[in-house]
Amino acid sequence: MPDSSTSTPSDRVPVYLDCDTGIDDALALAYLLGRPDIDLVGIGSVSGNIDAERGARNTLDLLALAGRDAVPVAVGAHDPLTGSFAGGAPHVHGSNGIGDIDLPAAGRGPVDGSAADLLIRLAHEHAGRLQVIAVGPLTNLALALRTEPRLVDLVPRVTIMGGAALVPGNVTPVAEANIANDPEAAAAVVEASWPVTLVPLDVTLEHVLDEDDRSALLASGHPLPRALGEMLDLYYGFYVELYGERCSALHDPLAAALALDGVAATVAPAVPVTVDATDGPGRGQTICDLRNQRQRWVDRDGAHVRVVLEAEPPLGPHLMQTILGAFGS
Amino acid sequence: MPDSSTSTPSDRVPVYLDCDTGIDDALALAYLLGRPDIDLVGIGSVSGNIDAERGARNTLDLLALAGRDAVPVAVGAHDPLTGSFAGGAPHVHGSNGIGDIDLPAAGRGPVDGSAADLLIRLAHEHAGRLQVIAVGPLTNLALALRTEPRLVDLVPRVTIMGGAALVPGNVTPVAEANIANDPEAAAAVVEASWPVTLVPLDVTLEHVLDEDDRSALLASGHPLPRALGEMLDLYYGFYVELYGERCSALHDPLAAALALDGVAATVAPAVPVTVDATDGPGRGQTICDLRNQRQRWVDRDGAHVRVVLEAEPPLGPHLMQTILGAFGS
Repeated sequence: MPDSSTSTPSDRVPVYLDCDTGIDDALALAYLLGRPDIDLVGIGSVSGNIDAERGARNTLDLLALAGRDAVPVAVGAHDPLTGSFAGGAPHVHGSNGIGDIDLPAAGRGPVDGSAADLLIRLAHEHAGRLQVIAVGPLTNLALALRTEPRLVDLVPRVTIMGGAALVPGNVTPVAEANIANDPEAAAAVVEASWPVTLVPLDVTLEHVLDEDDRSALLASGHPLPRALGEMLDLYYGFYVELYGERCSALHDPLAAALALDGVAATVAPAVPVTVDATDGPGRGQTICDLRNQRQRWVDRDGAHVRVVLEAEPPLGPHLMQTILGAFGS
Repeated sequence: MPDSSTSTPSDRVPVYLDCDTGIDDALALAYLLGRPDIDLVGIGSVSGNIDAERGARNTLDLLALAGRDAVPVAVGAHDPLTGSFAGGAPHVHGSNGIGDIDLPAAGRGPVDGSAADLLIRLAHEHAGRLQVIAVGPLTNLALALRTEPRLVDLVPRVTIMGGAALVPGNVTPVAEANIANDPEAAAAVVEASWPVTLVPLDVTLEHVLDEDDRSALLASGHPLPRALGEMLDLYYGFYVELYGERCSALHDPLAAALALDGVAATVAPAVPVTVDATDGPGRGQTICDLRNQRQRWVDRDGAHVRVVLEAEPPLGPHLMQTILGAFGS
């Protein structure tokens, strides 16, 4: 992470976060708020783990807990580009998206305009500098691209938590939830000619928080880490089946950390990526062309999507340090 | 491998081989001919590596070289269930399917009737005992199932070289050649309620022959191993890109060896398998539901397809020993 002890607002990296808050979204948000070298200039919500409206409210409440009420939050798409929102993942994130814990209600609401509008405005305002981090379904980004095709030139990099390259999916045998929730949007975003970093299950499942981390969050004197520790209770329960112990994958925070060089992508070939948007059994799969990569990882000519397969060091300690460093007491 | 030194014809396991000969098909054929405990009761050809007619001729010529002219060979489907044969893989197997080497022409031709007819007849003749080993596209098996649905009860096990579960495909990012050449047939064969052992690229790429093996084949006093050594020259050349050295994957012989317990499937969960037969980017993929298998490999209730992910010991030595043991001098 760059030394930012002396950074001024204009030095800081402007970041737009698109999310469906969501327990791991909350961790990603806390991580971004804890990074002194970035400027979180806007957040859009989208239906995914929970509906877009509730996701925005969760985000606003978390920002209030962090004392960061100046960050604008826009409500994004309720429904995917085709069809309608299927109801989220209450078995993973609770019926309210944040593990069924209660947060004090923020004293403000979302800004006017859609998440896509906000993204477009910020991309122009921070032309060539805005880091876009998308950790939910890609509906807002696809809508923004439709309205403002120049986004691909204005935004230097889009980092997406989503997909599965060489590991099984988590909602179908081949599809990961963020992509499966809106394959048409994901196809549009991945096909657009901007530099994309795809952070799939291959790598996000390898970075975890455990019970010791949760205890440390709960022991904090600040309400934000405590709330994170509380909501992780339900999330850890969900992951017992996968990991055989109470812990959690760090899907969304890993995308945030990779976007901002908090951890490094150590295996991340740039290869052709196609999203299956058929109605067949592969719907929602991120088809990454990783053929002939047996000897070494090679970038393919003209590929603008980098698929992260390994990241180092383990995110857990850096994530904890960043959150507790900013909100420890 | 069972001790068969005293086995009589009726003790021996009856085997039907469906193939698209092909260099690794030739290795599988030699392996089967070298196994004294099995009775190769019939062979059908299908278009894949080469067209079905040429595949049958290659098979007949190899059988003649082995002195096994009694094994019936039937010409199978030239075209897949939908569309037409796309021309094979001359860059892998040579323009004649067997590495562009010349074999003495067999003194006989194929039997009357199709490969599907032959399979149906043999399944009745050896009801409950016939091991079906399919190492080409699955067109013949699908046609046989259409004609005789009771095949699923007559045949105790179908072992298929095909597909890719958690590794990239070899003709598209997700599809392996045998399945990609006729996804509709593969879907029908995998959905039929017979016990299927799927031997995908995940495991076949891990078993190889190398230059020492090829030298040993070339040094044989028998023309069959010598021919195999000669045709492997071209095959090894193809695999340099993948492995970084001259060697070859043992796709088809591994399926044959697994079917007949020459090597053991050490990781082979029974899971739901769906073949993508859409016209989308996933066409030809074998979608194996391997979710939640992180802690240990678990068979899923009701799944009738076993997906081999690891096999031991390495096939190379057993394959060489079997072929040179039978045809060494």
